[in-house]
Amino acid sequence: MHHFFIPSDLIQNDSALLPAETSRQILKVLRLKNGEKICLLDNSGMGFEAELECDSSGGIVRAHVLRSYPVESEPRCAITLFLALTQREKFEWILQKSTEAGVSAIVPVFTERSLVRPEKDFSARVPRWEKIMQEAAEQSGRGIIPRLHAPLDFSEALRIGANVDCSLFFWEEETERTLRKTLEPLKPGMHSAALFIGPEGGFSATEAEQAALHGWQAVTLGKRIYRMETAALAAVILTLYELER
Amino acid sequence: MHHFFIPSDLIQNDSALLPAETSRQILKVLRLKNGEKICLLDNSGMGFEAELECDSSGGIVRAHVLRSYPVESEPRCAITLFLALTQREKFEWILQKSTEAGVSAIVPVFTERSLVRPEKDFSARVPRWEKIMQEAAEQSGRGIIPRLHAPLDFSEALRIGANVDCSLFFWEEETERTLRKTLEPLKPGMHSAALFIGPEGGFSATEAEQAALHGWQAVTLGKRIYRMETAALAAVILTLYELER
Repeated sequence: MHHFFIPSDLIQNDSALLPAETSRQILKVLRLKNGEKICLLDNSGMGFEAELECDSSGGIVRAHVLRSYPVESEPRCAITLFLALTQREKFEWILQKSTEAGVSAIVPVFTERSLVRPEKDFSARVPRWEKIMQEAAEQSGRGIIPRLHAPLDFSEALRIGANVDCSLFFWEEETERTLRKTLEPLKPGMHSAALFIGPEGGFSATEAEQAALHGWQAVTLGKRIYRMETAALAAVILTLYELER
Repeated sequence: MHHFFIPSDLIQNDSALLPAETSRQILKVLRLKNGEKICLLDNSGMGFEAELECDSSGGIVRAHVLRSYPVESEPRCAITLFLALTQREKFEWILQKSTEAGVSAIVPVFTERSLVRPEKDFSARVPRWEKIMQEAAEQSGRGIIPRLHAPLDFSEALRIGANVDCSLFFWEEETERTLRKTLEPLKPGMHSAALFIGPEGGFSATEAEQAALHGWQAVTLGKRIYRMETAALAAVILTLYELER
């Protein structure tokens, strides 16, 4: 069954009006027919199983809501991924994959060795990035679309990311402290976590020190060295696995 | 330090002769200088720290071996990834990422819903695929380059893949049996595992039945639905995490 996020005010009792873009996708791209079932999502964690009511004019589609239910795939722990800015293709890949993996928010960060400089204006790219995350959330059966924050400086990211139950700084020079050792004692009451992934060239020693001062715990992903994008995905997958284990 | 796999017979006592392609990469691409340290790998799990001895002609490079040591990043359990054939870009991405994650061998498989048909001849692509895996192994600090097998039919893959300590069939219609439950009792004596990842459209019910008849255990990756390439990477990462935990 296909999933679509739509603004919650378009779902009224047992009837939903689909936005023009969603209607177009249903009719022209997916070629769904009158009476077929879809799943609507209101981005608050609720799902609505609904039956298509296409009108003959081929324009806006309505749907008749059959039942509503809480989406069960959302993790209990909200993961915010703090991610060193990098080249566009890799960055977009991480947006897509970490959404599939269950992240709740992504914060792009300028770090010392980031391949992208703070002067850069990203506002033009935000709609494209939000679309990538929405599509990944629909495809993977998520109940919410992760939030994408405006890019932050490293020190601001450290400050904001320290404001959760557990802040993890994935650093390749950390070889002892594993995810398991770090998460095990915190698991029971843990509802929020921040994961920080550095750029291709890694974090600098100064950055690692600053992170420790702000209460971030340096952790290792294990003996094999991951590329930046693999590390980002592995960090989200393994943190949620360990918490849901 | 940069890592390079070279044929083991080029390493003789404390001296190594580097192949033309490796020499070119060292001199022209990486622009390393005489006396710089590199790590040579013989693809048997041994590493050799060595010092470059570039001659003035700028051709083949020799290296003086300073010490040899067993590479410690190799997993104790050899993972063979049985992978439904798919479009080239996605397939190559999985080769790269699963190598980083620690896979020992990859077997491409024609499944019922594979996007690629058995008539196709892949032999021309094998050198490129092997190069992708070698570079990923060098970059991630592996001690071996995973083996890439010739493509197999589904039933042959089932038969060969059942020949290990644990054969896991990742199936989205399996919702109960988790990796943890499956691996926990087997962990202590487990030295080999086969992981089967289906194509975009999933395995058919008939394929799942056949797999069960051959002794494969259907397992779930959890509540969120991964794309094929994400599932492949997650399966390798999580299996090794659970075994090394």
